[in-house]
Amino acid sequence: MSEVIATYLVHDTKGDLEKKAEGIALGLTIGSWTDLPLLEQEQLKAHKGRVIEVKELDTEEKTNQFLGRKVTKGIIKIAYPGVNYSHDLPAILTTTFGKLSLDGEVKLLDLEFSDELKTAFAGPSFGIQGIRESVGVYDRPLLMSIFKGVIGRDLTYLSKQLEQQLLGGVDLVKDDEILFDNLLTPFEKRIASGKEVIRSVFEQTGHRALYAVNLSGKTFELKDKAKRASELGANVLLFNVFAYGLDVLQSLAEDKEITVPIMAHPAVSGASTASSLYGFSSSLLLGKLLRMSGADFSLFPSPYGSVALDRDETLGIAQNCVNEDVFKQTFPVPSAGIHPGLVPLLMKDFGTESIINAGGGVHGHPNGAVGGGRAFRAAIDATLQGKTLREAAEDQLDLQLAIDLWGAKEVIQ
Amino acid sequence: MSEVIATYLVHDTKGDLEKKAEGIALGLTIGSWTDLPLLEQEQLKAHKGRVIEVKELDTEEKTNQFLGRKVTKGIIKIAYPGVNYSHDLPAILTTTFGKLSLDGEVKLLDLEFSDELKTAFAGPSFGIQGIRESVGVYDRPLLMSIFKGVIGRDLTYLSKQLEQQLLGGVDLVKDDEILFDNLLTPFEKRIASGKEVIRSVFEQTGHRALYAVNLSGKTFELKDKAKRASELGANVLLFNVFAYGLDVLQSLAEDKEITVPIMAHPAVSGASTASSLYGFSSSLLLGKLLRMSGADFSLFPSPYGSVALDRDETLGIAQNCVNEDVFKQTFPVPSAGIHPGLVPLLMKDFGTESIINAGGGVHGHPNGAVGGGRAFRAAIDATLQGKTLREAAEDQLDLQLAIDLWGAKEVIQ
Repeated sequence: MSEVIATYLVHDTKGDLEKKAEGIALGLTIGSWTDLPLLEQEQLKAHKGRVIEVKELDTEEKTNQFLGRKVTKGIIKIAYPGVNYSHDLPAILTTTFGKLSLDGEVKLLDLEFSDELKTAFAGPSFGIQGIRESVGVYDRPLLMSIFKGVIGRDLTYLSKQLEQQLLGGVDLVKDDEILFDNLLTPFEKRIASGKEVIRSVFEQTGHRALYAVNLSGKTFELKDKAKRASELGANVLLFNVFAYGLDVLQSLAEDKEITVPIMAHPAVSGASTASSLYGFSSSLLLGKLLRMSGADFSLFPSPYGSVALDRDETLGIAQNCVNEDVFKQTFPVPSAGIHPGLVPLLMKDFGTESIINAGGGVHGHPNGAVGGGRAFRAAIDATLQGKTLREAAEDQLDLQLAIDLWGAKEVIQ
Repeated sequence: MSEVIATYLVHDTKGDLEKKAEGIALGLTIGSWTDLPLLEQEQLKAHKGRVIEVKELDTEEKTNQFLGRKVTKGIIKIAYPGVNYSHDLPAILTTTFGKLSLDGEVKLLDLEFSDELKTAFAGPSFGIQGIRESVGVYDRPLLMSIFKGVIGRDLTYLSKQLEQQLLGGVDLVKDDEILFDNLLTPFEKRIASGKEVIRSVFEQTGHRALYAVNLSGKTFELKDKAKRASELGANVLLFNVFAYGLDVLQSLAEDKEITVPIMAHPAVSGASTASSLYGFSSSLLLGKLLRMSGADFSLFPSPYGSVALDRDETLGIAQNCVNEDVFKQTFPVPSAGIHPGLVPLLMKDFGTESIINAGGGVHGHPNGAVGGGRAFRAAIDATLQGKTLREAAEDQLDLQLAIDLWGAKEVIQ
C-alpha cells in the first residue's frame, strides 16, 4: 500500500494525546468518521488517516506560559494513504504538515515513505560513488574548502584563491553561497575560469579537483542555467535549495540534460529546523528529504563550531544520507568551525563516507590556504593510519602549525 | 541606493550586541574590514553591510539552558547593498537570513526594500480592487467558505456542497488545500463543474461568486496548469506557496498568460513562523513577502480560533497586506475558528477591506451551509448598520440559530 507515515513530537496542553492524534488523522484526510453513515464509511475507508502510535513521553513540570496549563510531551505517528495526494513533496508536505504546522507546538520528526511512494523519487544522480569516481579518491573522506570574502572581487582574485586552495590538496572548492550572478564574476565566467585553474593545477601536480558554482536566480530560469553550466563543463552546482523549494531541487536533479551533481546548501533551513518545538527535524529536512530530492551533497552545521547543531541531530542527518535505501548515497558534509585538529573526531563521528569542509580552517592557516589544505590532508592520512595528530605533526610542519593555532582533539579510536 | 534593511530579534549569550551586529553585517557581505588595506577598503566599500541600529531590549533573567549564560534580548538592523545579490527573493533571503538562520536564536522580523529594489517585484495583479470588481461588491467585507470533507468524494458531491454554500450568499468558496489532483475530482473538471454551479446560482438568485481551485503538482508543471485553468475560465487559483517557494508564486503572478488571481494558503508556513526565537515573523512572511510576490489573497490563522495566532501578529499581517505601497493591496483573510458571532470583532480588528472566512461556521449551522452563509451575511449587514447581532437576530432566524449555537461577541464600536 502506498502511504507515508509521519512522526510528530507534540507538546500538548489538553492532556489527551489519543484524541489529538485521532483529530489530526481525520482532520488531514476525510474530516469526520464516527458520524458518517456506514455506506460512506465504506466508500471513504481507503482515504482515512490511521493513527499508528501514541506515546506519552512525560508530562513536563512546565506550564504553558500563555494558557497556564500543564504540558504533555508525546510522540504521535499517523499514516496518510497515498491515494489522497499526488506523489510530489509539496502535496506530501501539505498533507502531513500543512495546516498542522500552524496548530500549536508540533514538530515533524520523520516521514516514512512506502516503497511504492519512493518510486516517485529518483534520489541523487551521482551519489557518493559517482563523486568519488570523478576525483578518483575512494579510501578517505574528501576535503572541501570554501571561497572567502569574494563579494566585490574580480575573476583574477577568485582564480588565485581557487588555485591556492587546490595546491594544498583540497578535493572540492565551493562558491560562497552568498555569491550570486554578478557583473564582476558572472556565473558562466566563473565556470570557465574555475575549469582553467583546475586544469592548470592538475598539470602541475596531478591532483584532480572539483569546483561547485552557485546556481542562483529566478526559479523558472534555473533549468536553462543549469543546462548551460552542464555544457560548459561545470563540475558541481551549489544550490540554496531552502530559498527555493525541495521540489525545485528534485526537478533539477531528475532533468537528464543537467549532467552535473548538485550540492545542497542549508541556507535559510534554520528558519524551520532550529526550534525544538516547531518545524522539521534536521535529520528529515537536511538528510532524508534532501536525499530523496536528489542532492548529491548535503551541507549542515557540524556539532563542533560556533554555528553548531546538536551532535545527535548531525548524526541523524548523516545517517539518513548514507543508510541502506533504494537511493544512491548523499555525501554528508558537516560544516563550520572545522580545523585540522578536529579531523580525528570528525572521522570518528561521520566515518570515511563524509566530506571534511573548512573555510577559516584552510584560509586562516599561517602558511595560507596551501598550508591549510596540507594540514588537513596530513591529519586525514594520520587518522587513517591510526596515528595521533601530534605524532604525525612531527614531520608535517603545516599540521604542527595548525595544531599550535587551533589545538587538536585526539580521539581514542 | 538599492538595498534591503533587515530587522532581527536576537537572544544572545555573549552580551555584546554591537559586536554581534558588526559580525553579521560583515559575515553576510564582504567577510572582513579592519584588516583590509585601504585600497581594498575603497574597492569593497559599496559591498559592505551596514549596521543601522542595535537596541538592547532587556537582559532576561533566564539563562540559556545549554550554555548556562545570561540571555541578552535585542533588536539589530542591518542594511545589505543591492549590488551584492540578484534582485530575486531566493538571493535576498539567502543574503539576509541564509547562514544566519542556523546561527543561534535569531528571528527575522522585517525586511525593508528600497524603492529601486521594489521595482523587481510586481505585487498582486488584481488586488483587493480587482477582486471586488469581479464580484461587484465594494462596501463590505467579502464572505468566503471552504469545502469540507471532500477527499474521496466525487464531482456531484462537490457541486452540491458548492451550491449550498453559494445559495447562502457566500462570495468565494475555496478548495480544501489538501485536495490535490485526483481521479475522482480532477483539476480541470473541478473548474468546469464549479463554473456550472456558479452560473446556475447566478441565474437563480443574481448572486455572483468565485471558486478558488487548488493549483498543485510539480513546480515546473504549474505554469502550464495555471494557463490551462485561465483558458477554462477558472476564477481564482488556491496555492500552497510555502510548500513550493515564494519565487514560484512570483513567477506565476507575473506570467501574463496566467490571468487568474492567486490565493496564498499558509500551509507549512508555521514551520518557520511559529517559534518566538527562530524563523520569520508572520507579518513579514504572510504579509509583506506574499504581497510583493503577487498574492491577491493571504490566508492566515485568525486570533480567535483553536488554530490561533497572536492578535498583534495577525494585525501586522493585515497591515502589510493593505498599507500604502507601490503594490496593489492583498486581501487579508483571517481564518479558522470563525462563526457569525465573531463578525463584529473581525470587522473591528480587520476593517471592511478583509475577507471573513469560515468552514465549520458555515457548514455546521443548524440550517446547513445555506443557513450558515445567511447568518454571516446578516451579521455583516448588522455590523455595517451599527446594530448589535442580538438586535439583528430578532428578525434573522439563521443569525439567531448561529448565536444560540456559538455565541456572539458584541463589540463596542
